[in-house]
Amino acid sequence: MTVLSLMTDFGLKDGNVGVMKGVIWGIAPGAQISDLSHLITPQNVAEAALILFRAAPYFPAGTVHLVVVDPGVGTPRRAMAAQIGGQFYVGPDNGTITLWLQKTPAARFVALDKPEYWLKEVSHVFHGRDIFAPAAAHLAAGTPLEALGTPFSDPVLLNLPQPQPTANGLRGEVIHIDHFGNLTSNIRAEDLGARLQTPKKLRARLNGVEITGLVNTFGEHPTGELVALMGSTGNLLACVVNGSAAARLKANVGDLFEVFFE
Amino acid sequence: MTVLSLMTDFGLKDGNVGVMKGVIWGIAPGAQISDLSHLITPQNVAEAALILFRAAPYFPAGTVHLVVVDPGVGTPRRAMAAQIGGQFYVGPDNGTITLWLQKTPAARFVALDKPEYWLKEVSHVFHGRDIFAPAAAHLAAGTPLEALGTPFSDPVLLNLPQPQPTANGLRGEVIHIDHFGNLTSNIRAEDLGARLQTPKKLRARLNGVEITGLVNTFGEHPTGELVALMGSTGNLLACVVNGSAAARLKANVGDLFEVFFE
Amino acid sequence: MTVLSLMTDFGLKDGNVGVMKGVIWGIAPGAQISDLSHLITPQNVAEAALILFRAAPYFPAGTVHLVVVDPGVGTPRRAMAAQIGGQFYVGPDNGTITLWLQKTPAARFVALDKPEYWLKEVSHVFHGRDIFAPAAAHLAAGTPLEALGTPFSDPVLLNLPQPQPTANGLRGEVIHIDHFGNLTSNIRAEDLGARLQTPKKLRARLNGVEITGLVNTFGEHPTGELVALMGSTGNLLACVVNGSAAARLKANVGDLFEVFFE
Repeated sequence: MTVLSLMTDFGLKDGNVGVMKGVIWGIAPGAQISDLSHLITPQNVAEAALILFRAAPYFPAGTVHLVVVDPGVGTPRRAMAAQIGGQFYVGPDNGTITLWLQKTPAARFVALDKPEYWLKEVSHVFHGRDIFAPAAAHLAAGTPLEALGTPFSDPVLLNLPQPQPTANGLRGEVIHIDHFGNLTSNIRAEDLGARLQTPKKLRARLNGVEITGLVNTFGEHPTGELVALMGSTGNLLACVVNGSAAARLKANVGDLFEVFFE
Repeated sequence: MTVLSLMTDFGLKDGNVGVMKGVIWGIAPGAQISDLSHLITPQNVAEAALILFRAAPYFPAGTVHLVVVDPGVGTPRRAMAAQIGGQFYVGPDNGTITLWLQKTPAARFVALDKPEYWLKEVSHVFHGRDIFAPAAAHLAAGTPLEALGTPFSDPVLLNLPQPQPTANGLRGEVIHIDHFGNLTSNIRAEDLGARLQTPKKLRARLNGVEITGLVNTFGEHPTGELVALMGSTGNLLACVVNGSAAARLKANVGDLFEVFFE
Repeated sequence: MTVLSLMTDFGLKDGNVGVMKGVIWGIAPGAQISDLSHLITPQNVAEAALILFRAAPYFPAGTVHLVVVDPGVGTPRRAMAAQIGGQFYVGPDNGTITLWLQKTPAARFVALDKPEYWLKEVSHVFHGRDIFAPAAAHLAAGTPLEALGTPFSDPVLLNLPQPQPTANGLRGEVIHIDHFGNLTSNIRAEDLGARLQTPKKLRARLNGVEITGLVNTFGEHPTGELVALMGSTGNLLACVVNGSAAARLKANVGDLFEVFFE
């Protein structure tokens, strides 16, 4: 039974996500559908890219990730499908796959230019329902990637902020704030490298507050303490144990997140 | 594998939607369930009617739409099931099917008066779980509509606001505000008819702001511009490109939405 | 087809719930997954316990309830699975099963101490994905409970507030406020016993407001009236008909909810 994941910025009130599932099950009746998120900040492709990157490794081979965060709907932006490693992406060609592709460069891309794999009537404003959901369902039902459209090799990639080396550390930034108020930075385990073997010697600084040393997990420290640690997908986090670091530090996406070595 | 859609005003916190799925899978183990919305404004049957009307055409034949927006739970209001076109409705007889039925008049109705298709114990306050979910699951599992109860022919219909002709246009109103802040009016493509062939000549007015001409899609205009266009299910919309028309115009459901021809 | 229910305090934005489904379907491809709630107040085990207790009776035999509300993640708190009646629980050993177990004492417990049933890499911070989801999926796929780990007999139990007898009634408290603003007390049908046969003689008092008599259902009284009634899972409620008792009474979880006999 093929798995699809579904991510949009449609919210949960208006029925649009449910409609896409109706379209999918009309074409791929047995497909299992996992909602990754429908609360992506409207038109925030970078946020969708981060969540997709973190999620894909945990899905079975053959999973089709259908992502519709699409500020360009109705413009000539390309609609696309891709095979990335052993899984698939369907959605607008707007950089949603940037991070995933950096980690999994073996990929093939097609433009969704074969109307026989779309709904018969295509609106100007809801390609998620009319083009992307049917294309994803056809993939899930076994249609080969190449049947869906014309191959291409230059997908749009986001220019995401990279941590910059400083005299004695790295200058990163907050790239995501989760439901608990944990702050995810763009500083990754590979950026810290061997420094991670002496985690007590690292210091992090956000909004004027300094955190000395990385902990392994929340549970090592009492409720309410501000800690830094490596998150479950390899990014450096700042967290308040059983609390909200975002509230404590009045932090926002884009805020400076610095690390000092010694 | 039969598809059910599920729509309620129960919210997503309290477990009540999940419980209904438990009941459904106890009776119809293979059913696929699509959540249309559980954030319907409490007791707002008209909102549920609009979302159901827009969604139904995109679901496969045989889909059972289970809708529980039920201000009358525990009163003698009728519980019902219906076949409408090739799909089914299960829920209270309170007008939820009004718009769908206008478009798809071929329908049969039964009152859910056969307790053998309900849970053994029926509470006074949660018919979604005790009556509607089991009835919908039995339909999904192949029980014929007529087995569920006594036929009737006079379902409750909502008296929904209709656009009124004016000297040089139509006087409609805002009937839905979506997650993006797009404003849906009750003015439909069929109300505009041949006028849609000269879309640049139409003007819309909401809360003192005028929009000249209809565009085909968001993408034709720059971010932040206020535009009017036909939505993907045939209603006239006002939108801000990659923004919120509701915020821009301080608009609410019920606000006047006028169209002028020339 | 085995059913799983899923409850967390992860929220709906960050993709973490969807990732757990990816893990589950990698191990148990045909499993049906019902989301009970992902909006549990962060770290509020008592809230999860209440929702699980109310939901379990409505799920089919064999259902696996996967609950991850886990303030102790990363501490030495035990990870566990249990068979309770004919269903299963998987999650931290932190009292989530307290209420369910009181009603269904026939139960067996194992500590999740067999890494062969976890993901290969286990993070310090996301056991829901790395330990609990795979363990639950193995149960759903037919692995016997005992295979997952070492039996034990002393699960953590919450010390939940019990209603106290007073001179002429009971002193309970508000334990849940639902999406509609209905107030659930910890006073249960069994606490009221024979008094429920003369419901008009009972009086409830919350935040200085008195309600005389219990009604059977919302529908007996006009919109806007404050009523007391027995909820669909056996707890005494205070509700405003088609409105919010929480807003009317400015009530919070933990507020006194008293009942007077005569």
